[in-house]
Amino acid sequence: MSFELSLNTGTTPNLNLEEAVRHTAEAGLSHIGLWRHLLVDGAEAAAKVVSAAGLSVSSLCRGGFLTAAEPAGQAAALQENRQAIREAAALGTRELIMVVGGLPAAAHVLGGEGERNDRDVAGARARVADRLAELVPFAAEHDVRLVLEPLHPMYAADRAVLSTLEQALDMAAGHPAATVGVVVDTFHVWWDPRLAELIARAGTEGRLASYQVCDFNLPIAADALKSRGMMGDGYVDFASISRWVAEAGYTGPVEVEIFNEQINAQDAALTLATMKQRYNDLVLPSLRGVGSLV
Amino acid sequence: MSFELSLNTGTTPNLNLEEAVRHTAEAGLSHIGLWRHLLVDGAEAAAKVVSAAGLSVSSLCRGGFLTAAEPAGQAAALQENRQAIREAAALGTRELIMVVGGLPAAAHVLGGEGERNDRDVAGARARVADRLAELVPFAAEHDVRLVLEPLHPMYAADRAVLSTLEQALDMAAGHPAATVGVVVDTFHVWWDPRLAELIARAGTEGRLASYQVCDFNLPIAADALKSRGMMGDGYVDFASISRWVAEAGYTGPVEVEIFNEQINAQDAALTLATMKQRYNDLVLPSLRGVGSLV
Repeated sequence: MSFELSLNTGTTPNLNLEEAVRHTAEAGLSHIGLWRHLLVDGAEAAAKVVSAAGLSVSSLCRGGFLTAAEPAGQAAALQENRQAIREAAALGTRELIMVVGGLPAAAHVLGGEGERNDRDVAGARARVADRLAELVPFAAEHDVRLVLEPLHPMYAADRAVLSTLEQALDMAAGHPAATVGVVVDTFHVWWDPRLAELIARAGTEGRLASYQVCDFNLPIAADALKSRGMMGDGYVDFASISRWVAEAGYTGPVEVEIFNEQINAQDAALTLATMKQRYNDLVLPSLRGVGSLV
Repeated sequence: MSFELSLNTGTTPNLNLEEAVRHTAEAGLSHIGLWRHLLVDGAEAAAKVVSAAGLSVSSLCRGGFLTAAEPAGQAAALQENRQAIREAAALGTRELIMVVGGLPAAAHVLGGEGERNDRDVAGARARVADRLAELVPFAAEHDVRLVLEPLHPMYAADRAVLSTLEQALDMAAGHPAATVGVVVDTFHVWWDPRLAELIARAGTEGRLASYQVCDFNLPIAADALKSRGMMGDGYVDFASISRWVAEAGYTGPVEVEIFNEQINAQDAALTLATMKQRYNDLVLPSLRGVGSLV
């Protein structure tokens, strides 16, 4: 089977691991994308909970936050990411989603005007590339792929200095495709005028590791992280993007990851029922339309 | 003189034309960037007010909103933009800033599920290109340049389907550089990983028509349009971007355009004093450092 729908647990933040797994299985899904904070009893125990319910893990969220400027922060980030790599391996997923981090939030540069924000986005990007290179051998040893996630440019300052699929592919380019990939998250990249060609490039280069769907809602939420919406409620053209993803050869699970006050608060069974219907109506036909041809 | 500081009247929304001109002149500035709604007695009368104070108009804001899908909306947009072109000519500025418009807000597509948002971003972009081509001869006749403004991707759905400098330059490419240019607004483009090369390209192609500065603040404001900040208060690397702009050969006025609840509400003299100091401290040295060499 291809294009299996997967619940990313960011969509149901009030559920613990057992609850998220149970809801996912009861909804008839085969995959779940896990956030690390749910692994309270360790990855091995979580792997048993998941497999006992007949599910597979589509991805682990997340590694990253690699922009620290000081040696101590860099060492801590490497240690944290190595742990995330071990957990992904234990969970039986190859895909570790990487949110690379923004300008160092806590870093205050002492200049002529006293403390001010760090604004060296080029420097932060260079440090991400350096840390990534240091993690690649460890990830390869564990047969885990570091999946670079370009985030919407509205998060460039505080969350990810990686803003476009092109930039992610360029950063991945020096490393084996089996070890460094990219994820297409519709919320983050829908606006990119070069999206079609970049998704095709990701496919050609063998780096299209994950497809995450949710909508881009307006107005932007008071907490900008929670502007994501259920497919069909916002402005994303799921038919076009899904077609490009399938044309690029992607056949893996499709995760629904929605940070949204209202959806996150509502009954998880309702969320799962709605996302199944919207996925079947708005996303799957375009994936299958291509998938049946390739 | 080069790199003259200019007040864009979007920074002082509570001032009428006469007040904005008086404050600008009293602050010792030589240029002002006008919004069209200030031209209550027409562009010719406004031109007299501006020149009587010894000022020049650096740009007119704004034309654009070219994404309408229906003939009536398209005709209205063309009429409105022709009027803006006439006004720019009357004001003695060549630069008409163009915010191209988002997905047609009022357009509801009747589909199987009833009314829903228009999500055809590719179609909206094609319509912008078509309307631009229709306006070019009229702009050329009036010796006015249509200055395409790429807006931050957070506004791609509702305000401008033009999101990157590359996209703006590609759209301009078929037209004379004297008639279609681009503006670099730091708020909108600071995050772009290819910004240095794209500003250089804009210079090489003779299309760098305006440089607008303000900062990118966090958190994103409740009204996302008002997330702009005073230079130095946010995350923009003004030294690098200003250097690239000067290296690209730009020597024109530099507008400060800040939509921000607090700044917009405060005393305009304070705003002008602050923006002068921040400009002199954070922007001008990098412009002059290059400017003295070219």
